Amino acid sequence: MKRVPATFIPLIMLDNRAKAPIYRQLYDCLRTAITEGRIRPGQRLPSTRAMAAELQVSRISVFNAYEQLQSEGYLETFAGSGTCVARTIPDDAFGLSSDQRRRGVRQAIAESGPRSLSVHALDLLNAPLEPWLRNLGAFRVSLPALDQFPVDVWSKLVARHSRKQSRVIMAYGDAMGYLPFRETIAQYLSAFRGVRCDSSQILVTTGSQQALQISAQVLLNPGDQVLMEEPGYPGARLAFATARAQLIPVPVDDEGLVVSEVVSRHRDARVLYVTPSHQYPLGTTMSAARRISLLKWAVHSGSWIIEDDYDSEYRFGSRPIASLQGLDVHSRVIYIGTFSKVLFPALRLGYVVVPKDLVPAFAAVRDAADIFSSTLYQAVLTDFIREGHFARHIRRMRMLYMDRRKALANAIRNQMGDTLEVIGSEAGMHLSAFLPHGVNDVSVSKEAARIGISAMPLSTCYLKPPTRGGLILGYGGVNPRQIHDGIRKLRISVHRTGGTC
Amino acid sequence: MKRVPATFIPLIMLDNRAKAPIYRQLYDCLRTAITEGRIRPGQRLPSTRAMAAELQVSRISVFNAYEQLQSEGYLETFAGSGTCVARTIPDDAFGLSSDQRRRGVRQAIAESGPRSLSVHALDLLNAPLEPWLRNLGAFRVSLPALDQFPVDVWSKLVARHSRKQSRVIMAYGDAMGYLPFRETIAQYLSAFRGVRCDSSQILVTTGSQQALQISAQVLLNPGDQVLMEEPGYPGARLAFATARAQLIPVPVDDEGLVVSEVVSRHRDARVLYVTPSHQYPLGTTMSAARRISLLKWAVHSGSWIIEDDYDSEYRFGSRPIASLQGLDVHSRVIYIGTFSKVLFPALRLGYVVVPKDLVPAFAAVRDAADIFSSTLYQAVLTDFIREGHFARHIRRMRMLYMDRRKALANAIRNQMGDTLEVIGSEAGMHLSAFLPHGVNDVSVSKEAARIGISAMPLSTCYLKPPTRGGLILGYGGVNPRQIHDGIRKLRISVHRTGGTC
Repeated sequence: MKRVPATFIPLIMLDNRAKAPIYRQLYDCLRTAITEGRIRPGQRLPSTRAMAAELQVSRISVFNAYEQLQSEGYLETFAGSGTCVARTIPDDAFGLSSDQRRRGVRQAIAESGPRSLSVHALDLLNAPLEPWLRNLGAFRVSLPALDQFPVDVWSKLVARHSRKQSRVIMAYGDAMGYLPFRETIAQYLSAFRGVRCDSSQILVTTGSQQALQISAQVLLNPGDQVLMEEPGYPGARLAFATARAQLIPVPVDDEGLVVSEVVSRHRDARVLYVTPSHQYPLGTTMSAARRISLLKWAVHSGSWIIEDDYDSEYRFGSRPIASLQGLDVHSRVIYIGTFSKVLFPALRLGYVVVPKDLVPAFAAVRDAADIFSSTLYQAVLTDFIREGHFARHIRRMRMLYMDRRKALANAIRNQMGDTLEVIGSEAGMHLSAFLPHGVNDVSVSKEAARIGISAMPLSTCYLKPPTRGGLILGYGGVNPRQIHDGIRKLRISVHRTGGTC
Repeated sequence: MKRVPATFIPLIMLDNRAKAPIYRQLYDCLRTAITEGRIRPGQRLPSTRAMAAELQVSRISVFNAYEQLQSEGYLETFAGSGTCVARTIPDDAFGLSSDQRRRGVRQAIAESGPRSLSVHALDLLNAPLEPWLRNLGAFRVSLPALDQFPVDVWSKLVARHSRKQSRVIMAYGDAMGYLPFRETIAQYLSAFRGVRCDSSQILVTTGSQQALQISAQVLLNPGDQVLMEEPGYPGARLAFATARAQLIPVPVDDEGLVVSEVVSRHRDARVLYVTPSHQYPLGTTMSAARRISLLKWAVHSGSWIIEDDYDSEYRFGSRPIASLQGLDVHSRVIYIGTFSKVLFPALRLGYVVVPKDLVPAFAAVRDAADIFSSTLYQAVLTDFIREGHFARHIRRMRMLYMDRRKALANAIRNQMGDTLEVIGSEAGMHLSAFLPHGVNDVSVSKEAARIGISAMPLSTCYLKPPTRGGLILGYGGVNPRQIHDGIRKLRISVHRTGGTC
């Protein structure tokens, strides 16, 4: 067996004050020297005694480093003839000289050939930056009044379940969710949203976004047609794009989605996505006549309807509108909701009400996605609902948000006059408003983001270029002072962008 | 305007003892009657006074029900002439008679046309049932010793963060994860796994399954080639199948993945998935020579390597093997790990170490998947690691699992002789063992599941039919008594299935 003589020891720098133990530092140095080709396959290393003397470290450290390198296959030993770099190491290793190494990782990446991403990932990267999402103050959409949340009650429930830390809270859970939580959701939806369901149909998700992704994976093949409200919810667009579906816009008017367009023109759509209770982002409510026509269309065209009931808890001045799902006797509606907006976003709990015959498919896709949802918050929220805290919180927030909506609408009227035209029904945690014709909403939003105001441009909700720009303003998480101050800043932003106020 | 006279009131059954208020019951009855066509568009309803008298309920209840139906568009009123069913309701509604209704939802579903699912969902549904996953006792794979978890320390940290319930714990978080947690993970991986990274590269996920899904979405177009270890991890197969990739098996031997096959035959693969520290499921460790060849191949063929280091915390008798990622100077390796196996599965926290130039793509795909991970457990685990509890727990579990592995191997040798041939290195929380040639492992596993034992068939890890069956047995969550008893039952299962013991 040919062995290269141990002509030199590679430069080894050890640091006694470093956190890593000496053996580990030596191991790292030698491994790097081997992989970079500075010591070659077959080359002999000094004995542990000689190396220890050379480096002025204990022999046991050297021994440990050698042993580790040997167990990983970098070194080999021969009885009586010491330790060599394994001959199985390819001779040119990476073909990277230490010179090349010094030019750094950046260079190495550049030299490492094409760094191809999926078309889908590139599409996502090509989407415009969204500076308005960086801000968590006025007027961040979907942010509730966190300071009004009953933290004491909640944290007591968290502590109760965490202390028990039962097997149920720790072990693998069901892909569909924690059963008592699913029962509670089914009761809540039957009583308050007119949803027809039992607990077997409830799939707990990490929020409505995952609910949309799973629905898309279950229902859509690449290239399938999905009808979207125009304007519509960008998160849904993302989910359907992930399934490589073809998105087709359908207009929205004062009664919601223009169903006659759907009926007359779209027999081949596999899925229709709709927000009938409170259209996102325009805020209209779908009329009963349209609901019935839409369900009829779904049966006749064999299409699925995804009903996203994202903030139906909050309606001011009128009673909640019953869900589309509750009207559907043919189980063509997949109903999606979330607790993240009602309680707090980092809760990450939403749900899908799945048609009975589709439950196995939804469970399988969810299992493949991320197995199941963390159990602790599911158990805590079950108690929070059953003990009445949830209903109480919603009642309180309904009053608060009604006041905040009024305050926002007043501030807009008083400070911005006709520059912002508020639209939509009195519901939810955000309002939409049109800008004057010709004012670019993305420019306004960018300018607003620069001075700390989050105002989502309406145009980001359109698939095609819109005829008129606007802003979506969340008011859930802002108090009257923030509203007043925020609108003042927004006025400045519109003015600077060339709007008229 | 033509109006149909109020010739009859539909049968309305109200229940004073029901939970739902009277107005709601009346609303439901009327709405159902309208949508089922039992009262027709234009038909006049009795006045509120007449209806209240007829039903012997308060007039205000009737008024509320009418008002709600009117606001939803089911009814319309005309000054002086009372209330009618809205003429905008399509005349044949669903075309469903109450007779048809009575035949029930099942029938309605059957009549509602094709119920098409995606090809992907159908594939998942066609996969064989996995009865061995139902059991959470011996020998459930991936289940740690939950009874050994330091519940007191953990629940104190949970209570601490939950009581504060700071804005950070409640509001929207970063798609990449909670920054202090990412910093802690980066330090841990650098120190213990030889991973080259900083916190900017850490993406926190809901577990390794989501990490695989996100990686697949970022890297793969439909039809792209993915090289998989044969046998390999079924969860990875699921993730790549979700991205509609083409899976290609590469054999595994005593040194891990047979890299020479990869180098000589697979220049066009977009991704290679590998478990070099502890091959899943066979338990071998990839040699240094192969690691270096594999990285060279990735550079030359422009492929990505996904390194799944799923249980590297536990090696018995030898020091941990440094990660493949740490050898990679070209940033071609995506490194995946999880805390679910080390701590407890319902934690739902894993991570990806992302090459720096790919961070924006991973962040965008994660945002589209489910926005971000719940913050509470991220903050708790940060403290758990920083305060030293994590390292202590791993040290304790390493001793415990080493003992359990020995006990399991002994029990197999003593009770089953040559019927089960244990393979793989001394590491992790499961061991694999071959059954005698000709014994069907799925049959053995089904028989075992019937008597309460979880023994995963090795054949489920193969893309092609394997030459020999085997079992994967988790020992993390089982004590010596359960091991003894479990192997006894397993012996019976093998015997009943026609094996030789």
